[in-house]
Amino acid sequence: MESRILWLYSPYLLLYSWALSAHVFLAVAQRSTYIVHLDKSLMPIVFADHHHWHSSTIDSIKASVPSSMDRFHSAPKLVYSYDNVFHGFSVVLSNDELAALKKSPGFISAYKDRTVEPHTTYTSDFLKLNPSSGLWPASGLGQDVIIGVLDGGIWPESASFQDDGMPEIPKRWKGICRPGTQFNTSMCNRKLIGANYFNKGILANDPTVNISMNSARDTNGHGSHCASIAAGNFAKGVSHFGYAAGTARGVAPRARLAMYKFSFAEGTFTSDLIAAMDQAVADGVDIISISFGYRFIPLYEDTISIASFGAMMKGVLVSASAGNRGPSWGTLGNGSPWILCVAAGYTDRTFAGTLTLGNGLKIKGWSLFPASAFVRDSPVIYNKTLAACDSDELLSQVPDRERTIVICDYNPDTNGFGFSSQFSYVIRARFKAGIFISEDPVVFRDRGDAAPFTHPGVVINQKEGKQVINYVKSSVSPTATIMFQETYVHGERPSPVLAGFSSRGPSMSYAGIAKPDIMAPGVLILAAVPPDLPAVIIEPEIQLTTDYELKSGTSMAAPHAAGVAAMLKGAHPEWSPSAIRSAMMTTANYLDSTQKPIREDDNFLATPLGIGSGNIDPNRALDPGLVYDATPQDYINLLCSLNFTEEQFKTFVRSSANYRNCSNPSADLNYPSFIAFYSFNVEGNYTWLEQKFRRTLTNVGKGGTTYIVKIENPRNSTVSVSPQTLVFKEKNEKQSYTLTIRYRGDDSGGHDGSITWVEKNGNHSVRSPIVTTTTVEVWGADD
Amino acid sequence: MESRILWLYSPYLLLYSWALSAHVFLAVAQRSTYIVHLDKSLMPIVFADHHHWHSSTIDSIKASVPSSMDRFHSAPKLVYSYDNVFHGFSVVLSNDELAALKKSPGFISAYKDRTVEPHTTYTSDFLKLNPSSGLWPASGLGQDVIIGVLDGGIWPESASFQDDGMPEIPKRWKGICRPGTQFNTSMCNRKLIGANYFNKGILANDPTVNISMNSARDTNGHGSHCASIAAGNFAKGVSHFGYAAGTARGVAPRARLAMYKFSFAEGTFTSDLIAAMDQAVADGVDIISISFGYRFIPLYEDTISIASFGAMMKGVLVSASAGNRGPSWGTLGNGSPWILCVAAGYTDRTFAGTLTLGNGLKIKGWSLFPASAFVRDSPVIYNKTLAACDSDELLSQVPDRERTIVICDYNPDTNGFGFSSQFSYVIRARFKAGIFISEDPVVFRDRGDAAPFTHPGVVINQKEGKQVINYVKSSVSPTATIMFQETYVHGERPSPVLAGFSSRGPSMSYAGIAKPDIMAPGVLILAAVPPDLPAVIIEPEIQLTTDYELKSGTSMAAPHAAGVAAMLKGAHPEWSPSAIRSAMMTTANYLDSTQKPIREDDNFLATPLGIGSGNIDPNRALDPGLVYDATPQDYINLLCSLNFTEEQFKTFVRSSANYRNCSNPSADLNYPSFIAFYSFNVEGNYTWLEQKFRRTLTNVGKGGTTYIVKIENPRNSTVSVSPQTLVFKEKNEKQSYTLTIRYRGDDSGGHDGSITWVEKNGNHSVRSPIVTTTTVEVWGADD
Repeated sequence: MESRILWLYSPYLLLYSWALSAHVFLAVAQRSTYIVHLDKSLMPIVFADHHHWHSSTIDSIKASVPSSMDRFHSAPKLVYSYDNVFHGFSVVLSNDELAALKKSPGFISAYKDRTVEPHTTYTSDFLKLNPSSGLWPASGLGQDVIIGVLDGGIWPESASFQDDGMPEIPKRWKGICRPGTQFNTSMCNRKLIGANYFNKGILANDPTVNISMNSARDTNGHGSHCASIAAGNFAKGVSHFGYAAGTARGVAPRARLAMYKFSFAEGTFTSDLIAAMDQAVADGVDIISISFGYRFIPLYEDTISIASFGAMMKGVLVSASAGNRGPSWGTLGNGSPWILCVAAGYTDRTFAGTLTLGNGLKIKGWSLFPASAFVRDSPVIYNKTLAACDSDELLSQVPDRERTIVICDYNPDTNGFGFSSQFSYVIRARFKAGIFISEDPVVFRDRGDAAPFTHPGVVINQKEGKQVINYVKSSVSPTATIMFQETYVHGERPSPVLAGFSSRGPSMSYAGIAKPDIMAPGVLILAAVPPDLPAVIIEPEIQLTTDYELKSGTSMAAPHAAGVAAMLKGAHPEWSPSAIRSAMMTTANYLDSTQKPIREDDNFLATPLGIGSGNIDPNRALDPGLVYDATPQDYINLLCSLNFTEEQFKTFVRSSANYRNCSNPSADLNYPSFIAFYSFNVEGNYTWLEQKFRRTLTNVGKGGTTYIVKIENPRNSTVSVSPQTLVFKEKNEKQSYTLTIRYRGDDSGGHDGSITWVEKNGNHSVRSPIVTTTTVEVWGADD
Repeated sequence: MESRILWLYSPYLLLYSWALSAHVFLAVAQRSTYIVHLDKSLMPIVFADHHHWHSSTIDSIKASVPSSMDRFHSAPKLVYSYDNVFHGFSVVLSNDELAALKKSPGFISAYKDRTVEPHTTYTSDFLKLNPSSGLWPASGLGQDVIIGVLDGGIWPESASFQDDGMPEIPKRWKGICRPGTQFNTSMCNRKLIGANYFNKGILANDPTVNISMNSARDTNGHGSHCASIAAGNFAKGVSHFGYAAGTARGVAPRARLAMYKFSFAEGTFTSDLIAAMDQAVADGVDIISISFGYRFIPLYEDTISIASFGAMMKGVLVSASAGNRGPSWGTLGNGSPWILCVAAGYTDRTFAGTLTLGNGLKIKGWSLFPASAFVRDSPVIYNKTLAACDSDELLSQVPDRERTIVICDYNPDTNGFGFSSQFSYVIRARFKAGIFISEDPVVFRDRGDAAPFTHPGVVINQKEGKQVINYVKSSVSPTATIMFQETYVHGERPSPVLAGFSSRGPSMSYAGIAKPDIMAPGVLILAAVPPDLPAVIIEPEIQLTTDYELKSGTSMAAPHAAGVAAMLKGAHPEWSPSAIRSAMMTTANYLDSTQKPIREDDNFLATPLGIGSGNIDPNRALDPGLVYDATPQDYINLLCSLNFTEEQFKTFVRSSANYRNCSNPSADLNYPSFIAFYSFNVEGNYTWLEQKFRRTLTNVGKGGTTYIVKIENPRNSTVSVSPQTLVFKEKNEKQSYTLTIRYRGDDSGGHDGSITWVEKNGNHSVRSPIVTTTTVEVWGADD
C-alpha cells in the first residue's frame, strides 16, 4: 500500500469537466510560491502575534540569503498568513531562500503551490423539504447558519441572492463582506452576508498577470450555481430556456451565504484556497461547501484535506464533491476521513420533447433544445442507409430538407456516443429536426448533458424507435410533430440513480474509510448563473445566455449536502461535524422510488463506493436516533496510525505536542460505515480475512430506548456484531459494540452489505453500509 | 358625393395585414349564397315564428322553380335564419331561384355573400387602470358584463382564459357555450362563458370544403389575442420571447368573454359574421368587439355596419377596428355612425437591444431578436462600401464573420425600408450580428413590427450611428456588446403616438361623421396566442412558438376600447351605447406625455381623422360630466337623410313602417365630434362654408352645475356657439346649443379645432374635435 499507481478515467467524464483556463506562466528568477507550515507552539514569545512572526521569518531569510535582493524581486514575498484551518504562510521563494527557511524555528514543511480543479431547483421538492414538517421548519429554513462557499465568485444581482424575507444580520456576522473594488455592488445584503476574494497566489506565481475580475464577482458561473444550490432564496419564474420552469430555491433558502472566491480566470491555486478556507473559518461560517478537488495527491499534500482538517478541528464541517471521473473505481477525490464526500445522482425530473406521429402515437423523448421550436406535422424520412447519419453526401441529397425530419438509427459501433455525432451531420445537412434512436441505458446516461441540443431534435430508445420506423415505413406520407420545453417529474423511471460521471471509491489518498459518504442530486440542476456568459448554442452560430442554467456534476451535489448539513447545525447547534455527517449517512436512502436498491445509470446496481450510504434524506437526518460521533482527538489518533513522518503529521495537527502524544494510534475511526480489504496470498489464492471494528453510538433521541441489530452480509462474508442489543437509559448516553467481518471467497470483486440498528418500539433505524473489496494501492506515506 | 373612387394604400400596411387563406372555390350549378333581408312586419300571421316563415319561403321557391331539383343540389338551402341584429336569412340560390325569392312577401333585398378581412399587456397600466380608484373598482374590473368577441376562435387553455378569481356565472348567462365537437375542452368556465362557431356560409359557398377545425378553437392566433386584450384574466410570468415580460391582463380582467368564431382557415364570410353577431346579441352580450372590416363598401352593403346597427338598436355597442391602411387619408373602415371606430396608437413601452461600445458608450437601440443572444466584446467592422449592406459578394469577403458585428449605414434611397433588406444580407453572410443605422422617424415607425429580427441585430438612429462609426474609425480593435430582451416603459419619446398603419378618416362609406372616434393602444401588444403556431423565426430556418405574442394593428386597439366600454356599461348600466361612446370620446386625451398635441409616428401632428377625439382615458370616461346621447330614432333620422332607396333603408331598419315615418330626416346626429366640408366652386376658388350643428348635452354628473364653452378655431375658420353657458339644475337634465363653422380659406388641406365645455367650479371638461376639410367623394346611394 505504499506505491503510487496509475488510474484510467472514463472518457465520458470529459463532458462534465470544468474547462480550466490553461495559462502558461512565466518562471521568473527561479522563484516559486511555497505553502509553509509552521508549528505555532514554537513561536518565540518576542512576537506579539503570528503575522509578526511570519514577516520576521521572511526578513531573516532576506538577511541570510544575499541573492534575495535580485533585480526581479526585491525580496522573498509573503503571500498569505494562515492561522485558522492551518498555521503558516505562503511565500515566493528561491531554492536558496527555501533552504534558509527550513532552518527557521517552528518550520514543519513547505511545498509548492498547485492548481486546483472544480468538479459542477426543484431538488428541495425532490428531497421532500417542505414548510410544514421536517428539517425546513426545524431549522427555520437555515436562518441561523452561514454556509461558506469556496468557489469562483458570485453574481450578487441574481434573484437567488436577494434578501427578501431574510431576517436582520446578527452583530457577530458583520464585517465579513469584503467584495473588492470590481464588485460593482456597494455592499452585501441579508442573504449574501460575506463576499471575499483571494488571488495573491496567482499574482505570486506571475506578478505580470492582469486579474480581469479583481473582486468576488463570478465570471464563470460555477460559483453562483453552487451558492444558489446551497442557500439561494426563492426565485420565481426562472428556467433553463423554458425547461425546469418554476421557482428555484436553495436547499436552505434562509441560510446566509458567504462567498470565498479563490478560483479566477487567471488560475486556481492552493495558496489562495487555504487563504479562503482560513478566512471562512475565522469569519465563523457553520458549514463549508467546496466543489473542487485534486486529481491524485497524497493526503499530506492535499491542501483541501489539510485545510478541512483544520476546519473540522474548529467545529466546521466541509462538504466536498467526489469528482467527475466515474464510473471507474478509485477515481474519487476529497476522500479524507474528516470531509463529507458527496457523489451525484439523478432526480426524478426529466426534460422532454414529445414526439407525436401522424397516426397519433405519442412518445416522450429526451430533448433540451433551448427554444420553443415549431416542428409540426412535418414529413419524416427513414431509410436504412441514410439512417446511419454519418455521411454529409448522402444526407445532403434528401430533397426539401428544411421541412423534413430525419430518423437516425442506433449504431452500436459508436459505443453510445453516436447521438451527438449524428446530430452534427443532421445540422450540417439542415434538416428541420432529427429523431435519434439510442440504446436506452446510454441515452439515460446522456441525459446529464444538455450540450448536443443545438438544433431541434429528440432522442428515443430502441423500442420506441421500432414503432416510429414501422409507422414511417407503412405510411404513404408520414409526418410527426415535436413539442419542446417539456419538463416532467415523478417519471416512469426509478429515481434516484447514480450518475455515471460521479467518481467512485475507494479513496486513493486514504482507503481506510469507505468513500464517498453520501449521494445528493447532481444531474441537470437548475441554479443561478451570471447572465453575461454564453450558455448554449443554436446552430450554426447563435450563442444564448441565461440567468438560470441546468448544470451537472458532483460540484452540484456538494452544495446540496452542505445546505442540509447547515440546517442540521441550525436545528442541533450542539452537534459536532462528525455527528452531523453521521446523521446524514445513517438516514440516507439506499432504495430508489421503487423500493429497490439504487442503480447506476447503466442499470447496474450501485454500491457504497458509488453512492456511499445512499441518497441524502434531510428530514430523516433531523432525527437519526443514534449518531457515530468522533472527536478531534479521534481524528488525530487516526493520523497517528498512518506512518506519517513528523513533518507530514504536523501538516495536519500543527503542533509537535500532539505528535509526541500519539499514545493511542488507531485507524478504527468511529465512522458510520465499514470497509474491509482482502488480497492475494503468496499461493495466489484469496486469503481469509477477519477484520474487527469497534464503534460507539450516542443516543440523540428523546430518552431511554433499545436498539436491535439487523445484518445484511456481503457476498462471501459473515458479519457478526456484539452485543446484538443496545440499551440506552437516557439521552446522550453512549453504547459501544464490536463488528467482525470474516471473508472467505474466491473472487476479485467488491461486495457490500449493511448493519442497521433498529429501534425497538420506535421509528429510528441507523444503517451503515459494509464494503469488502480487494486491496487497492494508495498514495503511500513514503512518497 | 355619389361616385365610387379608387384609393391608393400605403405599401407599409402590408406588414400588418392578416394573411387570409386564399381558397379557390368551386362554382357549383351557378348557385351562390345570398344574404336576404325580410320585413318582419310583413310576416303572414299563419307562421308561428320567423324560422317557419323562412323555411316556408324557401319551400315555395322550390315549388316555383323546377330547376331547383338539379342533380348537384337537392334544393335551395337555408344557411342561417337571423332575427336579432338583422331580420332575414342566408340561402344558397340560383339566379332563377333568386328571381322567385324577390317576389316573396316581405322581401327587401338580397346580395351575395362576401369575404371579410381582419385588422392586431401592460396596456392596462399605460391606461392608468388600477385597483384603488377609477374604472376598475367602479366596475368590479368588469365582473358584471360580457364582452362578445367576433373573431377566429379562442384557445381556452391559455392562462388568460382561466377563471381564477371569477365569480359564479349568473343564471341568465348560462347556455351560451356551444364550442363544438373539436373544441377538446369539455366546457367553458367562469371566464370564458360563451364559445360559438359559425361556418355554414363557408360550406354553402363550397359544400366540399373540409373545415379543419370545426369548433370555436383558434387556429390562427388573432381571436385569442383580441379576446385576451379585452378581458383576459391575470396571467403571470408571460412574455414575447423575453420581451414585455410580466403579468398580462385584459383591460377588463373580470369581465366575461364569449367568443363568436366566424373566421376560419377555410374562409371568412358575411353570412357567418351576421350569424355570429345575431347570436351574440341574442345571448345578451353587453359589448361586441370586432377586428375585421371591408376594404371599401357602400354603407348598405357593409354587413358589419348593418348588423352593428341592429346591435345598437338592441342596446349593444360595437367596438370595431379602423383598419390598417394608413397613413393615407380616407382609408378607414367601420366608420358607420353607430359604431365605435378605433384607431391604433403606440404606448410608452419600447423593446430594446442595448449596444455598448468598447469605449463604454451605451446606446439603447431597437431590437426584438427572440432569444437571449450572447454578443459580447465582439469585433465591429465598418467601411463605407461594405456598409451599404447590399452585396453578398462584398460581405462574404469579410474574414471571421461569425465573430464579427457589421455596421449597415442608412440608405435614403430605399425609402426607409433598407433595414429589413440589409438584415437579410447580413444574415446570409453569417455575421455574428448587425448594427443598422436608420432614419429616426422611420425607425420609430418600423418599431411596430417584430418580423425582421430573425438574427441578432440592433437598429439605431443616424445621430447614434455617427457616434458608433466615429468610435470604430478611431479605434485599433473596436468591439461592441449587444444585450437583448430588454423592455423599457416611460421612455424618452413622447407617448402615445399614432401608428402609421392606422387607417385615416374620413369614412368613405359615410363621411358625415368625423371618424375614427378614438385611439387605443395597438402597437406591439402582448396577448395570448395558441402555442401550436409558428410565431417568429431564427434564421436560417428555426421557427419558434409562444403562448403570448406581441402583435400590432387596429385589431388590437378595438378590444381595448371594448374592454373600457364594457366596464362603463358595468358602472353605468343605464347608459345607452351612444352615451358610453360619448363618455369615452369627450374625455379622451388629445395631448401626449409631454402635454403637447399627439403626433403621428413620422413626427407630423396627428389630426382627429387619425386619432379621433384622442387616446382613450378609461378613468376619466367613468365620470364625463355631460354626454351627447342619441336614441335609435336619431340614427333612423340620419338614415332617412341619406337618399337611400326603400330597400337600402330597410336593410338597416327592417320594417317599412319606419321608412314611411321619415318625418324628421337629419344628418345632424347628436355626436360628440364635428366635421364640415368645403370644396372648389365653379371659378376654381374655395368657397365660403357655413355649416350649422345642433347638439344636446345630458348632465350625467351628480347634480346642478354650469358649463362654459371654450373654442379652438380650426385654421381659416371661425366657430361660434350659442349659448356660451349651459346651466343644468339637476342630474339627467338636457341642454342644447348650436355651433356654426364659417370657413374662408384658400387652401386644400384639412384643419382641426375643438369645442370644450368646461365646468364652472368643477373638474369636468367635455371636449369635441372639429374638423374642416375639402369634400371627399364617397360610396353613393345610387351605386
